[in-house]
Amino acid sequence: MAVDAREFIRTKRDGRRHDAASLGEFVAACARKEIPDYQASAWLMAAFLRGLDAAETDALTQAFLHSGRVFDWTRLGVAADKHSTGGVGDKISLVLAPLVAACGVPVPMVSGRGLGHTGGTLDKLESIPGFRTRLESAAMATQMQKLGVIMVGQGPDLAPADGLFYALRDVTATVEFEPFIVSSIVSKKIAEGARAIVYDVKCGNGAFMKTRETARSLATRLVSTTRSLGAAAAALVTDMSWPIGSTVGNALEVVESWRVLRGENVPGTRSLTLALAAEMVRLAGAAADAGAALARVTRALDDGSAAEKFLALVRAQGGDPSALERGRPLHPAPVVAEIGAPRAGVLAGCDCFALGELIVAMGGGRRAKDDEIDPRVGITLVRERGARLERSEPFARLHFARNDAELVRRAAACFTIGDEAPEQPPADLVLERVPLDD
Amino acid sequence: MAVDAREFIRTKRDGRRHDAASLGEFVAACARKEIPDYQASAWLMAAFLRGLDAAETDALTQAFLHSGRVFDWTRLGVAADKHSTGGVGDKISLVLAPLVAACGVPVPMVSGRGLGHTGGTLDKLESIPGFRTRLESAAMATQMQKLGVIMVGQGPDLAPADGLFYALRDVTATVEFEPFIVSSIVSKKIAEGARAIVYDVKCGNGAFMKTRETARSLATRLVSTTRSLGAAAAALVTDMSWPIGSTVGNALEVVESWRVLRGENVPGTRSLTLALAAEMVRLAGAAADAGAALARVTRALDDGSAAEKFLALVRAQGGDPSALERGRPLHPAPVVAEIGAPRAGVLAGCDCFALGELIVAMGGGRRAKDDEIDPRVGITLVRERGARLERSEPFARLHFARNDAELVRRAAACFTIGDEAPEQPPADLVLERVPLDD
Repeated sequence: MAVDAREFIRTKRDGRRHDAASLGEFVAACARKEIPDYQASAWLMAAFLRGLDAAETDALTQAFLHSGRVFDWTRLGVAADKHSTGGVGDKISLVLAPLVAACGVPVPMVSGRGLGHTGGTLDKLESIPGFRTRLESAAMATQMQKLGVIMVGQGPDLAPADGLFYALRDVTATVEFEPFIVSSIVSKKIAEGARAIVYDVKCGNGAFMKTRETARSLATRLVSTTRSLGAAAAALVTDMSWPIGSTVGNALEVVESWRVLRGENVPGTRSLTLALAAEMVRLAGAAADAGAALARVTRALDDGSAAEKFLALVRAQGGDPSALERGRPLHPAPVVAEIGAPRAGVLAGCDCFALGELIVAMGGGRRAKDDEIDPRVGITLVRERGARLERSEPFARLHFARNDAELVRRAAACFTIGDEAPEQPPADLVLERVPLDD
Repeated sequence: MAVDAREFIRTKRDGRRHDAASLGEFVAACARKEIPDYQASAWLMAAFLRGLDAAETDALTQAFLHSGRVFDWTRLGVAADKHSTGGVGDKISLVLAPLVAACGVPVPMVSGRGLGHTGGTLDKLESIPGFRTRLESAAMATQMQKLGVIMVGQGPDLAPADGLFYALRDVTATVEFEPFIVSSIVSKKIAEGARAIVYDVKCGNGAFMKTRETARSLATRLVSTTRSLGAAAAALVTDMSWPIGSTVGNALEVVESWRVLRGENVPGTRSLTLALAAEMVRLAGAAADAGAALARVTRALDDGSAAEKFLALVRAQGGDPSALERGRPLHPAPVVAEIGAPRAGVLAGCDCFALGELIVAMGGGRRAKDDEIDPRVGITLVRERGARLERSEPFARLHFARNDAELVRRAAACFTIGDEAPEQPPADLVLERVPLDD
């Protein structure tokens, strides 16, 4: 039965609920271009202002999911994945995917590119020479069979209705709406074939969610919607008020990831990766409880099997890891400038949003979808949050294409020097788990 | 400066006010197709749900107005016009335009077609053989100069942005919103060159405004927005709980109008026409006060000068009024059936909406813009509201293309027979004037 778009829009305009069937028909008709964009966008605004409840969010997610191909990896086991809401210095996926795969859990990871102040896993992977993030379906199946892990970009056949709606949301000021965010994220994760999904919901000045309340609300809805589609799910709300680990910038973050894979304890990166990996392994049913899961993933990181899996993954996708293996820098920047403390004190805070924007301004991220990325640029933090500094003592190094004193000044201005030790999040950056217990 | 459509939409989405300049830029950019429909429609929904205040409504009206041509008749005097929000049996314009013109006030009347349960002046006029409702600008100017009156359809160069927005409103469930209704109506009236405008805001079961409150609110906003654009304005809230006059249906209403022009006192039609005409004449400055205005228009109706003006108008626009002049029916229907009272009692009420829908179903109106009209069909009321009827006594006659007992049954069901005399509106149907006094 054809959906009456006008009547459908009117329903939400007047604050009434959509049933799952009519929501599904509307999305399907939009995806088939039977309903024009101007009706879809009027509905987007009506939903944004009137709200969508949990059942409607679930139905919207289902509709996005079924607009395209749904992968099935059940013959290989319970496939797991992680989604991060985006942060600064967030290279977790690069360590996490091979680590979890090394524990025998299939990881069909589909990632995105950086946009705005946050980085993207695909951009980071592509700073490895030759690494291909586009694989044909057959190649994906072969590699999943052989290695149990892929790290790829989203193909056009994965939840295409979400792609259509996302493009419209972007131009109609309807992006920042939890039900839309949830349905977009969850539909793609389910479509890639993940059956055990961990959400890393970032919270703080470098995250889209600035407060614990909004982060917790999003985490809760992500988990409930994922479960409504029959997959296992949990979410960690994690600190994003300081860059993750010690580097921000594409090639720098790959090198840091390799150090963590080699067993180095880079603060934040290692412990958060282990926390997320343990959740994935446990949700996938590969460990009996949280303790066993953490032990399992810690062993796989420390015994080198995660690093081996990473190297195999890079080679399988055409990448050349030899620079990493020899401990050589990847895409070294021609200029590296030290950033010193403007006064004696404690390294207290970081405006992660401003820092992320700075990296974008330097060429390390995108303002528009087609912008080129410069993998060389970034920042290395040589001192940790809370470190005591003398006046002029260097605490970071800025890597750039050509020297620019203004950029150094802007980078320095992202950090605050205080008098007292700042409040610190837990070592693994996990502020809370959603649900609290299950 | 180019308008940032996303930012503009966000402003209204978040419930903030638009300034006049940015509203003007947005509408102009939409009209130039620089802003795509899907952004315009997202804004329409945001405005519908968040509201537009009086200043925003005025600015929107200005923007619509200046998107196209604005006629200027000041060399002929202060041009006047009337707009009705639409009713059942509303043939007032056919008498009103020549009547006011006969009083020396220029009337550049631009009318619409029927859509939904209400009729349209253009459709009625076109049941006069040969009558052309499309005139070139030059022909309009010549006729205005010669006769002081035109009755035409809206050309594509009159407030084209309103046309664009109206088409989008129609498909995005954003029609029933007072600021949009007001800006659409007022911009077109000002664009046609009217400087003294009377609004006939219908109220009751046959009107779009069902209650006095919504009718009064619309009337108030129509008047204030018109004045903000520098034209004189008043509104009459009039009864629409009974068909106006004694006929509904295109050719039937033309004949009734001619009878009124010939001096016959058809209840409702004559007195409401006089009330509206007096407002126009007074607003145009052609009479010192309400009493003088009413005397002036009554004289022009009774001395035959309005009828003369009507005949001249019809001939000037290619129409043949000879059937009317000879007192012959226009497009007589092949079948006429009497509708009798189902029981003895008082003719108490009419569901005008249902009656209007019935006429549409019979072919006398449109469901879609391109539907053909059958000018023959309609209904004649042979008894008035409040008349005492015996059982089976005929009170109306249905005119149709072919006999259909079901249509007679449906027509009868539109009327209620009561035991007591119904409450009656004033003879001129005017429930209130907005503003009350000025």
